[in-house]
Order: sequence, then structure tokens, then C-alpha cells
Amino acid sequence: MKEIYLDNHTTSSLDPKVVEAMQPYFKARFGNYLQPHQKGQELASDIYSAYEKVYELIGADVADDELIFTSSCEEAISTVYHIAHQECVQKQGKNHFLSLSTEDAPILMNLKKLELQGCKTIHLELGTDGLISVDKIAEAITPRTAMVSLTLAHGLTGLIQPIERLKELCKLRNIFLHLDISYAIGKMDIDVQELGTDFITFGGDKFHGPKSSGILYVRPGIAIAPLICGGLEQKGLRGGILDVSSLVGLSIACTLAKENISEMGLEVASLRDTFENKLNNNLDEIEIIFNQGMRLPNVSVIAFKSSVSDALLYALNQKGVYASFGGVQFQRLSNILNTLGYAPQVANGAISFALSSQTTLEDIESATGIIIEEVKKMRNLNVEGSYGTQRAH
Amino acid sequence: MKEIYLDNHTTSSLDPKVVEAMQPYFKARFGNYLQPHQKGQELASDIYSAYEKVYELIGADVADDELIFTSSCEEAISTVYHIAHQECVQKQGKNHFLSLSTEDAPILMNLKKLELQGCKTIHLELGTDGLISVDKIAEAITPRTAMVSLTLAHGLTGLIQPIERLKELCKLRNIFLHLDISYAIGKMDIDVQELGTDFITFGGDKFHGPKSSGILYVRPGIAIAPLICGGLEQKGLRGGILDVSSLVGLSIACTLAKENISEMGLEVASLRDTFENKLNNNLDEIEIIFNQGMRLPNVSVIAFKSSVSDALLYALNQKGVYASFGGVQFQRLSNILNTLGYAPQVANGAISFALSSQTTLEDIESATGIIIEEVKKMRNLNVEGSYGTQRAH
Repeated sequence: MKEIYLDNHTTSSLDPKVVEAMQPYFKARFGNYLQPHQKGQELASDIYSAYEKVYELIGADVADDELIFTSSCEEAISTVYHIAHQECVQKQGKNHFLSLSTEDAPILMNLKKLELQGCKTIHLELGTDGLISVDKIAEAITPRTAMVSLTLAHGLTGLIQPIERLKELCKLRNIFLHLDISYAIGKMDIDVQELGTDFITFGGDKFHGPKSSGILYVRPGIAIAPLICGGLEQKGLRGGILDVSSLVGLSIACTLAKENISEMGLEVASLRDTFENKLNNNLDEIEIIFNQGMRLPNVSVIAFKSSVSDALLYALNQKGVYASFGGVQFQRLSNILNTLGYAPQVANGAISFALSSQTTLEDIESATGIIIEEVKKMRNLNVEGSYGTQRAH
Repeated sequence: MKEIYLDNHTTSSLDPKVVEAMQPYFKARFGNYLQPHQKGQELASDIYSAYEKVYELIGADVADDELIFTSSCEEAISTVYHIAHQECVQKQGKNHFLSLSTEDAPILMNLKKLELQGCKTIHLELGTDGLISVDKIAEAITPRTAMVSLTLAHGLTGLIQPIERLKELCKLRNIFLHLDISYAIGKMDIDVQELGTDFITFGGDKFHGPKSSGILYVRPGIAIAPLICGGLEQKGLRGGILDVSSLVGLSIACTLAKENISEMGLEVASLRDTFENKLNNNLDEIEIIFNQGMRLPNVSVIAFKSSVSDALLYALNQKGVYASFGGVQFQRLSNILNTLGYAPQVANGAISFALSSQTTLEDIESATGIIIEEVKKMRNLNVEGSYGTQRAH
């Protein structure tokens, strides 16, 4: 059975070039770069040029900006919250934290942790368009607000938040702004100077990089309290031997992501449109959600009305088509749609499909064929099921 | 030039079997095991059997004991301190933490972090034998002591701490006991039930496992506050997608370590003895340190009196022999020897050699030949240098 993987925002396959670039560090180049002998020092230039590629991807300045390599996006986000706690709560007594009701587990769980430490957290509700209102954020801000934290482009919905005014607001009110850009990498041009935020985080496994890879960017001037303590690795800002295989693998994924942005915006977006049109033309009672707003070129959220997304995803899985209704590192898609005010019959039948630069037209044709068949089959079964129930009475 | 790597406690090479076992997860088996589709679920049994191997290595009970996979020993240790802060400082107001003056960066930096949060820390001084005195620890303990934290077998000195009485003392006084066993793995039989500690940590890269791998063991009954938040991975106890490649690689390294224990105790110990005897028989003014105590079978600390370890290590490096004087994730060996009361001319010329199961007799013969030659050359240079200086006056 051919597998069609449309769950690239849960995690993605490693690009073969990434895997190839990692191999030398599993063999002869296994040392610790801090050791003043050849086995350590031979890694220095590989590490330097790997960092350079990551800096380049997000337009950061090697001389000024701080980039910390982490084991995941989650570690990077947890470090942001640790720093914010240190800088805002402990030093300034600012203990209000602001985020969105549509956010995912890493931000939500870190907010929960802060609540246990006596902080106040606000999860702003959004409208059906799923986009922030800077006026509402401005209303929610108090003199004790420490940080606004959100995902620039949402993994499940694909929605891209407008942050231009938010950035100015945060600067004006002296509030930290943290953006997670995991799902934006390779799909949008990212320039940290333009974004003008204090913290940026992303994980490599969302764009064909290694699983054990993530990045934390910190604006110059912010004191960095390490979350993981232990040694001089990465200037003492993150303990634990630097996994050069993962760092180099990530750097290759970064370069590929940068190279593929225009392909993503044209070809993958066109595959996504083909996907949506074919489903729309062949199925009744479906709704393509968020297609009116600014969204990532590779994400499609489809509500199969009167279907149950769990059952449908299970049926698709049997045919080798993999997608997501959330619930892993995301909130459930149905919860998100509920909080945005969608009707239950829309929310409960919604599935998120995330394409990648590796998705082909053949994948899309097969996938749509299978989806159409399975949705029709399930609806027939439901109808027959109802008859059956009626007959039983 | 042939390389002879005797720096296995800074980091070690990956065993080819480990590397081989990791490969499938860089290719088709890249999913997230929490996803309810085939691409996630196909990983379940691999993950389960990998954990089983780790449990087996340390005699932990799959049903009761909690093992958390981390990205490093440092992450595991930082999590221990996070849990101890949560459980002892925040809930019970116990804020004294006790460790040893010979400890390494991960423990020392975590203690520093606690000091910034208002905790009191004690670094117990040790005698020239480098071993703990339980009586001294008992004296240092107060009703506010939260945790005693130490390395079971020291990476640089190779010394193994006797912990039988310490364990009882901690239990009696209701104090957490944390042991880092990174350097003991594969060299001593480890049984968590016998060790009877609350927390155990180790990193995979010290025994031919992957760089991005570490383990935190937590005794049943202790509430685990995650250091890295974000999702349901590992029961929500550690956020970030589980890197199955690293977990499986670690599990293979664990199995190999367990299999190699007797080889370590016999063959590697005998290589270490050959190493020491040959140096002792061919060089004046050397001292083999810690060879009277309980020490790991693969570590040799040699003081080349009147030499400077930095210069000697540099000279050895030029000949392809790699060893350590600390300073990376360790304290400097000279600092440790100073705190133990060794004379400066011993402390400043000391080098730690860490063999591994991959070290051969040929390695030892070449290494000793090179060391003897280089030490003699340097001593001649020093003497000539003195003559030169005298003549210049």
C-alpha cells in the first residue's frame, strides 16, 4: 500500500540530505568541541558553518543575536518562559502572561506552570477568522503584563497572525514578545530584524530536520538564564554536549527550507488548491475552513460535516492516508474550532492536512480519491445504520 | 597518524551497532508515536522494547519505576533539581542542598541556580582519598536539608563513592538522594532497588550511545514536575517529540554496556594496569593517583610531577593521543586535586586517561610509548630552557 503522508505539522520525514550530513558525526567526528585536542577541535568549523546557516535562515546577526541550539521546539519554548520568569517575575514583579485560546500544548503547559507559581495568565479568545485583534490585546494589557506569547503560523489551522501592530504595542508597553515560528519556516520569509520580537523558537522536525533539534533566538540585551545547567557548551547558556549531528542536520534543513520557499508558495500551494477543489467538487456538505484568510500554503482544514473526524481519520489510515485532528502537541482541532465559534457539526468533522515540499501531484490525486470514497462510504453506512436502527425498533 | 582516544569520559564514540540501530528512524520510521495512524503506531513496539532494555540495565521495574528519556545527562540532572525545588523548597520549605566540592558542572551549576533562588548550598570538602565521610555529611544535615546530590563514580578521578550508609542516612532523615551514574554504566552492576536512591541520572554519550540521549530515573511516589513542558510525550513528563532514533540507540548502548561489564572489570582493568605499570617503570617523578581506593576499571589519573598538564596534553595531541585535564563538563582536574590537598606540583601535572571497551592492547602500547617520549622530551626542554636562561644572564 502506498503511503500518503499529509501530517507534516505533527512531524515530518528527514530529508535524505539531512540524514547524509549527520552521518560523519556518528562515526569518526564524535568528539566534544570544547576539548583542546584534535578530536574536539576538528569540529569547530563544522559547528560554526552550521550555526551560520541557521542565522542566515532567519536573518539574524552572528555578531549580535544569540541563537541557542536545543533538543526541540518545546525545550526552546520552556527556556523562553524560564527567562521571562527570571527577568519579569523575579526582577520586576511583572507576573501577567498573555496568549491565545488557540495555542498549543508547549505554550499552554508553560502558562500552567507559571500559574502554579502565582502568575496570572490570559488566553485571549479569537473570532471565527482565528486572528488576533490588537485592540483586544491592548485592552488586556496591564502594567504587570510580562510577555505576549503566540504561534506566528498555526500548525493545525495554517492561519498566519498579523503581528505588525502587536510588535509595536509590545515595544511601547515594554512587554516581551515571543513568537513560535516552527510552522512558518520554509513557508514564509523570516527576518528577525523585521519581526522585531524578543524571542523566537522553532523545532527542526517540522521541516524535514532531525527530531532532536530546535532553536531559541534571543534579542541582544536580554539576560539568558539557562534552563538546562551544566558546563560551558554554548557559552554556558545551555548545558549538555552539543549534538553536532543534529545541529548540522538542522542547518541543512534550514538551507533547504530557505531554498524551497518559492516552491512552497507556488507549487505546494497549487497542490493544496487542487486538493481542496477536487474535494469540493466531489463531496457535498464539506467546508473548507480558513481559506479566506492569510494562511500557510501547505495547510488545508476541511470540515466533513456530519462526519466524525476520528472515524474518518481511522478509515483513511487504513488506506494509507495520514492526516491530523490534533491532540498530540496540538490542541484538538475540534476544540480550536469550538472556541472560534464554529458549529459542532463542522468542528467535529474537521481534519487538518499538512502538505510538504515532498508532496507530489500523484499523492494529491490518490489522496483525494481515497478521501472521497471513504467519506461517501461512511455516509452511506451512517444512513444504512439509521435504517437498521429504525428497523430494529 | 593513528589516533588513540583515551578521553572516553568527556564523550565516547558511537558503537557501530548503535549507529546501525538508529538508521531506520531517519528514514521510513520517522513518525510521532502518539498519532493514532500507522505512521505513528508502527513505532510503539520499538519504543517499548527500547525502554525495556534501559529498565533492564539498571534493574528498574517497568510497572512501578519512572524512567524519563532526556536529551542529555545535564537535562536529566536539571530536571532532578527542578523536581526537588518544587517538592522540597516550594511545598516543604526545605531549602538546604548538599553536594561535594569535587562535583562537576551539571551539579555545581544547578546548585548555583538554587542559590539565586534563595537556597543554601553546601559543597562538602573531601580528604586526599577523595571519598565521602558519612559522619561529615550527617553533621552538615539540618532539618531543612532537601537533597544530597553526587556522582557515584567520578568521571575524571574514577573514584567510586561508598553510598551504603549515606543511603540509610538520607532515608532516615527524609532527604532526597540523587546519584549521577553516567560513568558507572558498563563498569559496575547497577540495581536501582539496591541503590535505593530517589533519583538516578545518566547520559548515553559516556558509553558509546548517542549524543542526544540521557535518562532520569525517579523513585515511585515522587511527583514529577516537567522541566520541558509541551504535550503528552512521555506521559506529559517531558515535552518534545520523542527522538526514537536516540532512544533506540541508547537502548543498544545499554545492552552492550551490560554485556561488557565483566570484560571491563577484567580486560580493560588489565589494560589500565599495563598502562600504569609501563609509565611507572619508565618515568621518574610520576604518581599514580587514587590507585589505592575503589575506582573504575577504565580510569587512570597520572601526575607527571613538574610538568604542566596543558603543555603535555598539547604535545600528546600532536601525536594523536587524546586525554583530559577536565574543564569541559568537569571541573579542572588540578582544582579537584587542590581541594583534596594534593601539592601543586602534583595537581598541575595531572592528566586523566579514560579507556573504554574499544581500547586495545596496541593502543596502550603506542600510547605509553608516546607519553614516555613526550614527557622526557619536555623535561629535557625545561632543563635546556633553564640552562639557556642562565647563559643569557
